[in-house]
Amino acid sequence: MTHTFPVRVYYEDTDMGGIVYHANYLRYIERARSDWVRGLGNDQNAMRDAGVIWVAQRVEADYLASAKYDDELMVATEVIKVTPARLIMGQVVTRGETVLFRAKVTAVCVAAEGGRPTRLPAEIRALL
Amino acid sequence: MTHTFPVRVYYEDTDMGGIVYHANYLRYIERARSDWVRGLGNDQNAMRDAGVIWVAQRVEADYLASAKYDDELMVATEVIKVTPARLIMGQVVTRGETVLFRAKVTAVCVAAEGGRPTRLPAEIRALL
Amino acid sequence: MTHTFPVRVYYEDTDMGGIVYHANYLRYIERARSDWVRGLGNDQNAMRDAGVIWVAQRVEADYLASAKYDDELMVATEVIKVTPARLIMGQVVTRGETVLFRAKVTAVCVAAEGGRPTRLPAEIRALL
Amino acid sequence: MTHTFPVRVYYEDTDMGGIVYHANYLRYIERARSDWVRGLGNDQNAMRDAGVIWVAQRVEADYLASAKYDDELMVATEVIKVTPARLIMGQVVTRGETVLFRAKVTAVCVAAEGGRPTRLPAEIRALL
Repeated sequence: MTHTFPVRVYYEDTDMGGIVYHANYLRYIERARSDWVRGLGNDQNAMRDAGVIWVAQRVEADYLASAKYDDELMVATEVIKVTPARLIMGQVVTRGETVLFRAKVTAVCVAAEGGRPTRLPAEIRALL
Repeated sequence: MTHTFPVRVYYEDTDMGGIVYHANYLRYIERARSDWVRGLGNDQNAMRDAGVIWVAQRVEADYLASAKYDDELMVATEVIKVTPARLIMGQVVTRGETVLFRAKVTAVCVAAEGGRPTRLPAEIRALL
Repeated sequence: MTHTFPVRVYYEDTDMGGIVYHANYLRYIERARSDWVRGLGNDQNAMRDAGVIWVAQRVEADYLASAKYDDELMVATEVIKVTPARLIMGQVVTRGETVLFRAKVTAVCVAAEGGRPTRLPAEIRALL
Repeated sequence: MTHTFPVRVYYEDTDMGGIVYHANYLRYIERARSDWVRGLGNDQNAMRDAGVIWVAQRVEADYLASAKYDDELMVATEVIKVTPARLIMGQVVTRGETVLFRAKVTAVCVAAEGGRPTRLPAEIRALL
């Protein structure tokens, strides 16, 4: 099952090359992940109040084509693998039929203080 | 030979987890690459005026430990491989003895209009 | 007439204070202005290709209450004054009934090279 | 007495207009304020652990000239007024002799939870 999330490119996203600054794709796909886990019932404010946060552990990203100001993009997110402690997702950013960006992201949950790994939220482990 | 570049963590870099937002490491290591190529004589303003820009083609990033506000970090950059059209670098962000972040970045040069790949600047090809 | 534009707060927008980083309100209200002028027929890509860009000339901003992760905000934009060379807008960011942020923004158009002021786009001058 | 703080412009700071994105000046001057209060002995990590954060309450900003990639800028910060609860500063960003940006910033301290105003840190009140 694929979660989709629209992103519009604004001035803030561009750089002097006239295209979206490369690091901003990580922000786009993080918005999509946040939207997806919210839909599953995962409340990141409540998690943080309980001292637990999501963090990226590994990102593999391929930049295939560039996006410009005003482009309407779509972020597609799929689960590749869930373990009790780790969530691996495939994420693709497209503009119409064109694939612009592709990433494989491993996310884990850690204690905000100290960074010790913890189990994933129940809503996510339910995907196992 | 390793290029080193210091980064101080400011408020803007942090997120509600109390640590540096993950996408900002891509900004840190991009500053380091810019500083390094500037030292080699590569002028990105002149390149852009000539219609050519550097873009990231692939990034593999591992997040090993987190950084906090006010931390003094060091970005180390090494060339892994240079070809006429492609520059592959290893970049590591450390705080003292602690490795926080490690990335392998493939950068290429493209035409700002259209995105067609071009040869790397002469200063970079001289590293071949 | 008031233009309204919704903004959702994501992780990237927050800082270690647990709230939206202050500079990001300028990004939010710039998205709203971009959305508004797009609706009026103003194409910022075409402008840039013609060598003209919008720039902020003056911003007066009051921070009244803070926003948190996941908040659904609304940006309201009103024209205060238009002259041939200058557009002054009032912009307010709210969460439900609560006013979080209020700004008065003066925008002008300039030549991308050199920064010399130019007349506003016809679509905007039509608001005179 | 004026505090000065150097800023180099990187790719991340620019937008498709080929200049520094306007909101990023707020980040530059915030770095300068952070550097300045650190020098006075103000530890923002310790403040946050104690549940208190600095927030901007009002910003008046004038954009006078633009900055480009690789520019070396200087941020000058001066105290305009200190009260037990409020710090008002004048901040100017220059490139050589050219003034690019000028702001008047009112900063206050608030409880991270709830946002209730608190007195400024002792190091700052000592400037009274």
